[in-house]
Amino acid sequence: MKNKPTILVVNDDGITAPGIKALIEVMQTLGNVVVVAPDGPQSATGHAITIAKPLRLDGVDLYEGVEMYKCSGTPVDCVKLAVNKVFKGKKPDLCVSGINHGLNNSINVLYSGTMSAAVEGAIESIPSIGFSLDDFELDADFSHCKTYIEIITKQVLKHGLGLGTLLNVNFPKGNAIKGIKICRQANAKWAEEFDERLDPHKRKYYWLTGVFQNNDHGEDTDVWALEHGYASVVPVQFDMTAHHAIPILNTWDFGENKG
Amino acid sequence: MKNKPTILVVNDDGITAPGIKALIEVMQTLGNVVVVAPDGPQSATGHAITIAKPLRLDGVDLYEGVEMYKCSGTPVDCVKLAVNKVFKGKKPDLCVSGINHGLNNSINVLYSGTMSAAVEGAIESIPSIGFSLDDFELDADFSHCKTYIEIITKQVLKHGLGLGTLLNVNFPKGNAIKGIKICRQANAKWAEEFDERLDPHKRKYYWLTGVFQNNDHGEDTDVWALEHGYASVVPVQFDMTAHHAIPILNTWDFGENKG
Repeated sequence: MKNKPTILVVNDDGITAPGIKALIEVMQTLGNVVVVAPDGPQSATGHAITIAKPLRLDGVDLYEGVEMYKCSGTPVDCVKLAVNKVFKGKKPDLCVSGINHGLNNSINVLYSGTMSAAVEGAIESIPSIGFSLDDFELDADFSHCKTYIEIITKQVLKHGLGLGTLLNVNFPKGNAIKGIKICRQANAKWAEEFDERLDPHKRKYYWLTGVFQNNDHGEDTDVWALEHGYASVVPVQFDMTAHHAIPILNTWDFGENKG
Repeated sequence: MKNKPTILVVNDDGITAPGIKALIEVMQTLGNVVVVAPDGPQSATGHAITIAKPLRLDGVDLYEGVEMYKCSGTPVDCVKLAVNKVFKGKKPDLCVSGINHGLNNSINVLYSGTMSAAVEGAIESIPSIGFSLDDFELDADFSHCKTYIEIITKQVLKHGLGLGTLLNVNFPKGNAIKGIKICRQANAKWAEEFDERLDPHKRKYYWLTGVFQNNDHGEDTDVWALEHGYASVVPVQFDMTAHHAIPILNTWDFGENKG
């Protein structure tokens, strides 16, 4: 299998999730696949890494002909361990993450383990893509995403991605995807509603729940694209500097303490 | 204490850390302080939130005259619970996070629980600042940071911060801070070195360690400022769209699947 690209596959729903199986199946048609994925669910772990306890990384034999490792850590840990201990510094040609069971559009790029793994791939200068489907169910149907994943991945392998840039790809549920829209991240947020309960000892505890609040109705956003039946592709970068605010802060009065 | 601002204080080192004590002491001179902080260390948890288990939020009486709550979740959970269950939707005037034991400059903005809590504050439209000191030790000396924290916080309270913008403030170790530099996030990364060991059952495990690698020697970066003895102030935003890449992706060939 010379000349075929080496592809690292990761996710946050865990190595046995149907979503990663669908992604592996597409990637097997495009290159040599190596999977390093969490040994259990790691949704909403964001860019967390594991520093207070040790990590396990063990080979597993789950799908025929695929080199696979399960990791006890977060999705970002998986990418770090893959680069260092599996690829031993010889980086893969591509890092794909997902397919996530549930959307990772808009602000979810921050909370999502799937997207954080792809961000970590990009930090490692590996062309990286996160894929997510608007369906949280374990038995979600990923079949309609496969053609799109293949098309988008081929374009990434052909053109590459600028250093520090990755893609956040989200698919609507159902068969009738209208096409691919290149988008920006919508300015939306989660409005939390904590479900307050009493345990058997009469002490309060809370379940985090939330309602997605979109206040950004731009037709160039990922939220708009998905609501209108398109697959959204957002180029993502991880320089979080608010560059526009630098000249403003330079006018503030820090007295003699301005350096 | 009318007309005084209400200030939410959070951190990632846990509610008993000396860093948050120093921050509380400064904030008490500026407003009415409410603390909601993790009940134990939550460093490097990034923007993780807790969805797979319930959360505890309990009042504690640690420092005289300060309303304080410990939370079993992540720093971001703390901000969400503060807004919803402590302030009950009536948002505080300011959210400050830290003082972190250890730098959160450059790419650490992604990994840091301290900074993720401040980002969450900004997502909630609360003017937010994260503070960190270049000293990991539990007995780190925060006294030289206090004047600077006061000056910066007063400017934020006076001018406000643009919606979706927060500040990432880092201090060098030692008494001789040269002044405040407004900076951009340096383009740096962690080069991982996993410490590989064998457990008593002869199974491998790994400790995540790393070396900070800076390939960005711009004198306008936070890394440069800190290395030269200045406190760095980086304005941060959470639109991760790589806007410059949108026109490039629009030239790619998605065939008839372009929406």
